[in-house]
Amino acid sequence: MSQKSVELRTPKGTLDYSPDEVVTQNELIQQVVELFRKHGGMPIETPTFELRSVLTNKYGEDSKLIYDLEDQGGDICSLRYDLTVPFARYLSMNRISRVRRYQIGKVFRRDNPSFKSGRLREFIQADFDICGDGVPMLADAEVLTMISEILQGIGKEYVIRINDRRIIMGMLGRCGILPESYMAVCSTIDKADKLEWKELESEFISKGLNELQVNYIKKYMEVKGSNEEVIEFLEGENSYFKDSQPINDVFIDAINDLKVLLNYTSIFKANNLKIDLSLARGLDYYTGMIIEASIIGEDIGSVIGGGRYDNLCKSMSKHTVPCVGFSVGISRICTVIKAHEVERGIFVGSAHGLLIEERLKILEELWRAGIPAETFPGRRVNYKEQLENAIKQNFRIAVFTGENEISEGKLRIVKIWNRESINISREELIKYLRSN
Amino acid sequence: MSQKSVELRTPKGTLDYSPDEVVTQNELIQQVVELFRKHGGMPIETPTFELRSVLTNKYGEDSKLIYDLEDQGGDICSLRYDLTVPFARYLSMNRISRVRRYQIGKVFRRDNPSFKSGRLREFIQADFDICGDGVPMLADAEVLTMISEILQGIGKEYVIRINDRRIIMGMLGRCGILPESYMAVCSTIDKADKLEWKELESEFISKGLNELQVNYIKKYMEVKGSNEEVIEFLEGENSYFKDSQPINDVFIDAINDLKVLLNYTSIFKANNLKIDLSLARGLDYYTGMIIEASIIGEDIGSVIGGGRYDNLCKSMSKHTVPCVGFSVGISRICTVIKAHEVERGIFVGSAHGLLIEERLKILEELWRAGIPAETFPGRRVNYKEQLENAIKQNFRIAVFTGENEISEGKLRIVKIWNRESINISREELIKYLRSN
Repeated sequence: MSQKSVELRTPKGTLDYSPDEVVTQNELIQQVVELFRKHGGMPIETPTFELRSVLTNKYGEDSKLIYDLEDQGGDICSLRYDLTVPFARYLSMNRISRVRRYQIGKVFRRDNPSFKSGRLREFIQADFDICGDGVPMLADAEVLTMISEILQGIGKEYVIRINDRRIIMGMLGRCGILPESYMAVCSTIDKADKLEWKELESEFISKGLNELQVNYIKKYMEVKGSNEEVIEFLEGENSYFKDSQPINDVFIDAINDLKVLLNYTSIFKANNLKIDLSLARGLDYYTGMIIEASIIGEDIGSVIGGGRYDNLCKSMSKHTVPCVGFSVGISRICTVIKAHEVERGIFVGSAHGLLIEERLKILEELWRAGIPAETFPGRRVNYKEQLENAIKQNFRIAVFTGENEISEGKLRIVKIWNRESINISREELIKYLRSN
Repeated sequence: MSQKSVELRTPKGTLDYSPDEVVTQNELIQQVVELFRKHGGMPIETPTFELRSVLTNKYGEDSKLIYDLEDQGGDICSLRYDLTVPFARYLSMNRISRVRRYQIGKVFRRDNPSFKSGRLREFIQADFDICGDGVPMLADAEVLTMISEILQGIGKEYVIRINDRRIIMGMLGRCGILPESYMAVCSTIDKADKLEWKELESEFISKGLNELQVNYIKKYMEVKGSNEEVIEFLEGENSYFKDSQPINDVFIDAINDLKVLLNYTSIFKANNLKIDLSLARGLDYYTGMIIEASIIGEDIGSVIGGGRYDNLCKSMSKHTVPCVGFSVGISRICTVIKAHEVERGIFVGSAHGLLIEERLKILEELWRAGIPAETFPGRRVNYKEQLENAIKQNFRIAVFTGENEISEGKLRIVKIWNRESINISREELIKYLRSN
């Protein structure tokens, strides 16, 4: 290997994670997985990259953020953008018509990164999805209940905003927008969080909408109030906009489903659900309920997103499976929860001389008993320096051997938390450590 | 989304993993992580891809197997080929001079895939490395001890083959091969498992070696016997090859270090270590001990590999850290251990009528008590069909409500394992499930 200067950094928008951060992340993942298992989730894993054709036409305007692999001969691939489309590929490929699955994995987006707001180019998502026919809104309600429990576990104030693509579509239909423009308009509504109204307006206009249509959309996006009030608005909608197109059945079904959903989620005791008619979600594949949850007072955007996507599988093959699910933004949530300090086990030192074989024997005994333990790696024999290191490095207990200790069959123990030092018999070491 | 036919498969050399496989994989990872923690390991995470320049000149002939990301503007990146080089980048970047770290992650190699022998293009490695100065061979011995414990845990016969790059280099030096050819020759020796001697021989010749040199290497590669006998061979080496170059000090150091290593590992009670002078390892960066462990009787190549790499950091910056460590081939080991069947929790059914709200109330109680539970998703009310499904799907217990049950404040319980059916009081549900 030639000695040359290498640019020492991670690629743009990616991070290394320190032990404290990884431990925090893994604890969150552990909690989420327990919840997934509680709701009958089965884990599956799909590859980090997919055939590029699988990801094509799924993400609307965000498709430009997909990372492509170089054509090095063979398959043309891209890194996965989410875990949902690969899952739909898995369902279609294996012709699965009923499953509750979860998957935890890294996803990749060539977005404009911002570490402060937790927008990274590589981040971990934890996905749970319920697939298969069923009583309308039952799976949807379960999904919302799970999101509520995850956010409650984080211990911060949160809100789970919900809407329904059928309501948005119905609304766009009423003001005369054609179905082929729905996704483009949705993607602009989705930017309401990030853009000023002026900018939204000109984007709507650039997509071919007229002023009347833009104002009609604006009225919807501005509806405020309790869930009951929003439903009341939707039901009385006819009286608000006299000159619009007739209401269609799908729109009315969606309103009724919203009411069923609120009933089920109240039985499930899901909290902080809020109907928000300005919620649109950017992704193409949603067909019913859509969800975005955020932590109040933290400037990191949404931390959980999801919804119903009944036609995604159908877009890949003749296999149809209705699905509803959500993605937990593990990396993003970790930016707002406190990292834990990693605790270490037993430090094995020697008070006089190197005594390396004696230290190794002690280590072997501790490891065999399942007790985490380390010794100092060098030839250093200074007792004080060893103890200071054991304190600094967060060890729990320090065990010292020495020539006197060996001849007397003893060991010296220092409890790091109070610096108390005692002698114990060599034979009692494991017993002592297990009870202290 | 347009309805078009998508090619439904994973990219060449990659796999989807079913729930049973993921559970098996996670259990193995859990065991390995516990061992890593027992030896003071701290977890870190690095990105899935690195700046391409970080990976350049690290992998010898295998560099051609690196997956490159397309140049989409911005950083030029490649998927990580292993976890070692990114870790060295992390050490150099943060100027860390002492750490025990572990990392579990996917790595990517455009190799010729073979599912039968567990050679995939995407697979999981679990790495543990000890970095920093210390008593010679102490960390090396600890690493071998850990590998021995991991393999013992798998419960199959195994062998841990060891060698030292300094012995190979010394041997190559003795027969007059120049240092600039060492790596190329090593990479051919590394193919001894895969190629016939004829093929190896012609590869040596094509790399500029003469017949005498090839025969000299062959003698080394053919040394058999116990560890003591191999060391005896090395120490008496002068008498074997009269016309070779003088033995150098590094070679003699390596022999003495091997003896120290065998002493330490015997104190640590590491098993099945076997010095193998034909072991070379393909990667450029090793400088001392090299390791390859395999499971006897399984045709899957090595399952754990590693060694000492004291100059890898130095090749990236002025920061020098001696390191020794190993990678556990999680995906490969999983091909030879039996997958577990995933167990499910409680099935909540209704004996008569839909009774959806009552079922939701029961579910809510179970979930709140931390008990995994599901109901049937559809409108189906046939009791027999529900029970058969609960049995087929591996639920532990089925709980049925019904109109009679509600009016009597009872529930019907079916223990799936013996089909026994009893009635309990509605209030006792949680208590009953916790003790059954």
